[in-house]
Parts: sequence; structure tokens; C-alpha cells
Amino acid sequence: MTDEDRRGAILEATWQLIAERGFHAVRISDIAKVCGTSTGTVHYYFPGKDDVLTQALKYCVEQAFVRQSRELRGIDDAHERLLKLIDMQLPRMGRVRDEWSIWLQYWAEAVVRPEFRPAHNEFYARWHETVVRIVRRGQRQGVFRTDVSPEELAVHLTALTDGAAIQVLTGRPGMTVSVMRELLIGYVQRELLVERRTSPEPA
Amino acid sequence: MTDEDRRGAILEATWQLIAERGFHAVRISDIAKVCGTSTGTVHYYFPGKDDVLTQALKYCVEQAFVRQSRELRGIDDAHERLLKLIDMQLPRMGRVRDEWSIWLQYWAEAVVRPEFRPAHNEFYARWHETVVRIVRRGQRQGVFRTDVSPEELAVHLTALTDGAAIQVLTGRPGMTVSVMRELLIGYVQRELLVERRTSPEPA
Repeated sequence: MTDEDRRGAILEATWQLIAERGFHAVRISDIAKVCGTSTGTVHYYFPGKDDVLTQALKYCVEQAFVRQSRELRGIDDAHERLLKLIDMQLPRMGRVRDEWSIWLQYWAEAVVRPEFRPAHNEFYARWHETVVRIVRRGQRQGVFRTDVSPEELAVHLTALTDGAAIQVLTGRPGMTVSVMRELLIGYVQRELLVERRTSPEPA
Repeated sequence: MTDEDRRGAILEATWQLIAERGFHAVRISDIAKVCGTSTGTVHYYFPGKDDVLTQALKYCVEQAFVRQSRELRGIDDAHERLLKLIDMQLPRMGRVRDEWSIWLQYWAEAVVRPEFRPAHNEFYARWHETVVRIVRRGQRQGVFRTDVSPEELAVHLTALTDGAAIQVLTGRPGMTVSVMRELLIGYVQRELLVERRTSPEPA
């Protein structure tokens, strides 16, 4: 096993542990145990406990980015591309839900410990930029309104996605993955699409 | 000092500590030290460490509710009332920002430990209901569109508020309290107000 393979295996185990148990509940010895290695080896890859969380988020973001790029690349129409991105970010059970758990852990740390913010902002910017690029693409293609600021729309959509995911992940009654999906799609339809579909008549 | 006074003093110190340092960084002994009391006394009010977080959130929510009710009561117009609510929830420095920190701590726990969810959902529902009532009021007053579902609007506005607050609290470049304010006000203006103000012509 190369150094890089071992690092990857430790990261994969680590982020799953944090996603399931929470950052503070995971000890270096838990990671070592799951990986069948020593705490010394884990410390070699993560010099401090904080590195564990930052590297886990980085790993998640990179995995998600590769997954999304692969899926989105083949979709020409910007509206379809945005719907696919929304769909891929829904916190269904499994991997995506676990990735959301890492984000929530990270936010809780970043609010009280400013040293966590630069890495967060770098990862967050990548997501924001993905949305901005899709909006610009749709404006060029004529499917999205050109009086909408791609930057402002991306701020709105990312914030709405985060807030809705929190409601799903904390089990807010009535807030399911499919309600979240409708919420995001409805927003895009009302505020971004050129051709607004018929909405119900005012009562 | 009555039992109730002592409980209040401990809660006030506790939620401030959690807001500043994060839930997991606060020990019962830290709370005792700040309150000038014994760990035994703190344990009397919070039998377990988890009670500390749940009671802190409950305390925040109640304080905020009293503060908001007092301010909102005097405002007749629903649009003005909603703008005031939005303004009061902005994570400026100080008390409101600290309350937001508690919410973020709570989310991080609730995602990995379902036993935290019922209390969260009860507190969250109170906020949601405040928004729903203001929307209904505005619909009765004729200032808000009647083809908007108060429930759906409240889900959108609370999610958007949470997501925007996260961006402010994690120090996303360009995301300030005043940008957050414009984002929320803009949403209300575009999607809820009966008289839509003039928007820029499409390019």
C-alpha cells in the first residue's frame, strides 16, 4: 500500500466516522481502530485533531465535485443541468446525507473558531461558482432571465439549499427530501426561468 | 437567591459559554466557575451534559420570542412587521449572533443524535409559526399576495434565513449582515408583496 493509498483509506474511514458520530465524538484511536492501524499512523496524516475535520470536509467536497462534474458534463441545457445539480445535493440517505453531516459539523466549529473559516470559504466558493457558471450558461442559452444577477442568484440558491437541508437533517415534521426538492425547483422556476409556467390564479 | 433565580443565572452564563466556545468545549466545571458555584449545583439543574445544550437553546428561543413579541406587537402593518422580524434576526455582533451560534451547535448535534431533534423541532416550529401568522395577517390586510401559501413561504424564508446566517457566521467573503438583509427583503418584495416595485428591464 502506497502512502497515498493509506492516506485515502484513512480519510475515507475518518469522514464516515465524523458524519455518523459527530466531530467531537470521534477520537484518533477510533480512526486507528476502524483502519486497523496505530494512532501514530493516523497522527502522521493528521498532525492535530482539527486537521481531521478540515481534511474530511476537503475530501467530501472533492468527491462530490468529481461526481457532479462527471454527471453535469453531459447535460447541455443549463436548466436541466441546474435541476441535476439540485437533485444531486438532496440529503437522501447514504453518501450525500453523510456529506451534509460533515458540513453541519464544520459550521458549528467555524462559528466559534475563526481558524476553520478560510478552508470552509474556499470549499464553499467552489459550490457557489458551480451555480454561477450554470446561471451564466443559461443566460447565454436564453433559458434563464438576463435581468437576474448570477452572483445574487447563487447566494440565494446556496443559502436556501443549506437551510432546507438543515430542516431535513433535523427531522422537521413535513420536511422531506421531496419537499426540499420542490422548494428549490419552484424557486428556480419562479425567479430564473425565462418562460414562467402558469401559476394558480390569485384567489 | 431563589431556586429560580439561580437557575436563570446558570442558564444565562451557560448559553454564553456555549455560544462563544462551542458545546463540546464547555465543561460543567467551566459553568460552575463562571457562576461562582459548585459542579454539584450545576448538575442539579442540568442532570446530564446534553441537557446543557437543550436548555441553552430553549433559553435563547424564549428570550428571543419575548423580545420579538414586544417589538412586533406595536406594528400593525404586516409588511413592516415582517421586515422588523427579519431585522431582529440578523446575526449582528452581540446577543443575536450568540443565539445563532447556539442554533449551529444544536444542528451539528441533531444531525448525528436523533434524541436532540424533538426539542429542536418544537423551538423551530415556533419561529415558523411566527412567520406564518405574519403572512396570513398581510393577506388579510391586502398587502401580501393571496396566491402564496403561508406555509410554503415560511419554509422558504426560514430556510433562506438559516442558510444566509451560516454564510455570515462562517465569514464568507462578501456576505455581510447588510447583504443578508437585502437578500431577505428582496425575496419578500419579489414573491410576497402585492405591489411589485419596478424591476430593471430585461437586457
